[in-house]
Amino acid sequence: MPIAANYAALTPHFENAEEAMGRLIARATASDLVEVRMSTEVRSVEGGLGDWSITVEGPDGSAVIDCGAVILATGFQHFDPGGETQMYGYYEYPDVIALQDLEAMLKTENVVRPSNGETPTRLCFVQCVGSRDRQIGNEYCSKVCCGVASKEAIEVRKLLPDCEVFIFYIDMRMYGYWENDIYWPAQEQHRVQYIKGIVTEVLAKGDRLLVRGEDTTMGRPMEVPMDIVVLSVGMEPSAGTRTLAQLFGVQQNKFGFIDSVKAPMDTVTTSVQGVFVCGAALGPADLEDCASSGAASAVKAITSLRLRTVAG
Amino acid sequence: MPIAANYAALTPHFENAEEAMGRLIARATASDLVEVRMSTEVRSVEGGLGDWSITVEGPDGSAVIDCGAVILATGFQHFDPGGETQMYGYYEYPDVIALQDLEAMLKTENVVRPSNGETPTRLCFVQCVGSRDRQIGNEYCSKVCCGVASKEAIEVRKLLPDCEVFIFYIDMRMYGYWENDIYWPAQEQHRVQYIKGIVTEVLAKGDRLLVRGEDTTMGRPMEVPMDIVVLSVGMEPSAGTRTLAQLFGVQQNKFGFIDSVKAPMDTVTTSVQGVFVCGAALGPADLEDCASSGAASAVKAITSLRLRTVAG
Repeated sequence: MPIAANYAALTPHFENAEEAMGRLIARATASDLVEVRMSTEVRSVEGGLGDWSITVEGPDGSAVIDCGAVILATGFQHFDPGGETQMYGYYEYPDVIALQDLEAMLKTENVVRPSNGETPTRLCFVQCVGSRDRQIGNEYCSKVCCGVASKEAIEVRKLLPDCEVFIFYIDMRMYGYWENDIYWPAQEQHRVQYIKGIVTEVLAKGDRLLVRGEDTTMGRPMEVPMDIVVLSVGMEPSAGTRTLAQLFGVQQNKFGFIDSVKAPMDTVTTSVQGVFVCGAALGPADLEDCASSGAASAVKAITSLRLRTVAG
Repeated sequence: MPIAANYAALTPHFENAEEAMGRLIARATASDLVEVRMSTEVRSVEGGLGDWSITVEGPDGSAVIDCGAVILATGFQHFDPGGETQMYGYYEYPDVIALQDLEAMLKTENVVRPSNGETPTRLCFVQCVGSRDRQIGNEYCSKVCCGVASKEAIEVRKLLPDCEVFIFYIDMRMYGYWENDIYWPAQEQHRVQYIKGIVTEVLAKGDRLLVRGEDTTMGRPMEVPMDIVVLSVGMEPSAGTRTLAQLFGVQQNKFGFIDSVKAPMDTVTTSVQGVFVCGAALGPADLEDCASSGAASAVKAITSLRLRTVAG
């Protein structure tokens, strides 16, 4: 996703996304032990632990891959705020964008109002778009959006020191070291303005946007003009996660993410023997979650085959 | 820690802590491949990747353990609110307790006021005690206390339906599935009362406690009587984490936790070759973090030895 969606820098360490992902990709592609098949889809699946036959179809036609264990690492997709609910005018106003749209602008160091190419003087983030929301069926918190929005806010402030940056939030979920690594510097060094409040709608007013809602700390309605509104969209299961979950018959939760059936003491074992899962295919996950569960799924996959060999 | 500190049930899945930990302990102690040494301390360390010699001292005297790689899994300790700062009268008033004190009472299903043995009718949690606090030097968020307090709040409400339960918080950090698995049920099914507010002091008034502070949502001072005040104490590095970090010479952060020097893309590699780290020795961590990074450290340790064999 960092490559596909043109992320600029990663959260929380601000490393260039292409460089960070590039290192991982290079290690996999350079290894004689790894076979990479790009643009290839799984069509059907047979067998079980120790003896999977997986039919794939790619640029060179179809092939059958035989393997002992499978790790599903199919990740997430960004919540689409323009679906049934038409939230905050995402498809109506060009200056209402999503986290990944701002990432792409930050990547080229060219943050402008999409409507007219002008440099913004006021930009805000609206948190929890597509998360913590029973109406759309996503009751979970997407975990990373507070950190990602704060990281992007810092980047905007560095790039455009004259642009005021606001973050409207319900709870600022800067857990662990994100608190001191991102949240405190955002406020103290970069003067990002955090406002606890509920945004109810985004309207056009003249050639600017008007953000309406309630400042819950001040206990009063608010109506503030903005040049760019960034929707902090949450995570949903990717199409690949949904498709592979069905092909392998692994248990999914009601949101469509894949269940780790022995969680929390084992985070990567699915309901099907010989099939493991890691990263955001499990649900909202930050980079450290993905790195840890990725490595955990590797050791569990190896162990499942070893134990089978020992047993018999 | 769940066993040492008498936790009742684990977060987020409410499983009996002794049963959940017991399964893990049984698998280690029953295995021919694992040698467990209880009550044993590391005295000195020599060597490096592939060739460590570790002198330990235990009930049967001292011994030297030779091994190829080392995983530090020495965890955390609870912040002590009675240290230099004497926070909220923890050592002054018997009815001011900490999260782990309530766990121990929940374990015996006997939640009473320590001062007089009576059943409480009003109990509150004070969040962020020893976390997000520059004055005491713990600027980080301890990550799990919102979830643990909410879990305990639900357990108190189930055990004592006539006891009102309040949680005073800055931000409710119920990330990921904790939002729908714990936070929503706590409010809707169990009527736990969440109040965004800053608690400034806890006083005695008659034979009860008085909690003083500010309700930041209502924007007014508050002064509420309580029978029991539970301090949601954060995580600090354990004595074992500090000692082993020094013996192995691995890089620590300014809080004393062990640095994973390749984070976030690799969560378990320390600054010393052949030494890995997992769980809350790294910093604030929930059970899933610990399960994932524990397994990740295993695969990294194995890989470090394999690569050395291949290279050498």
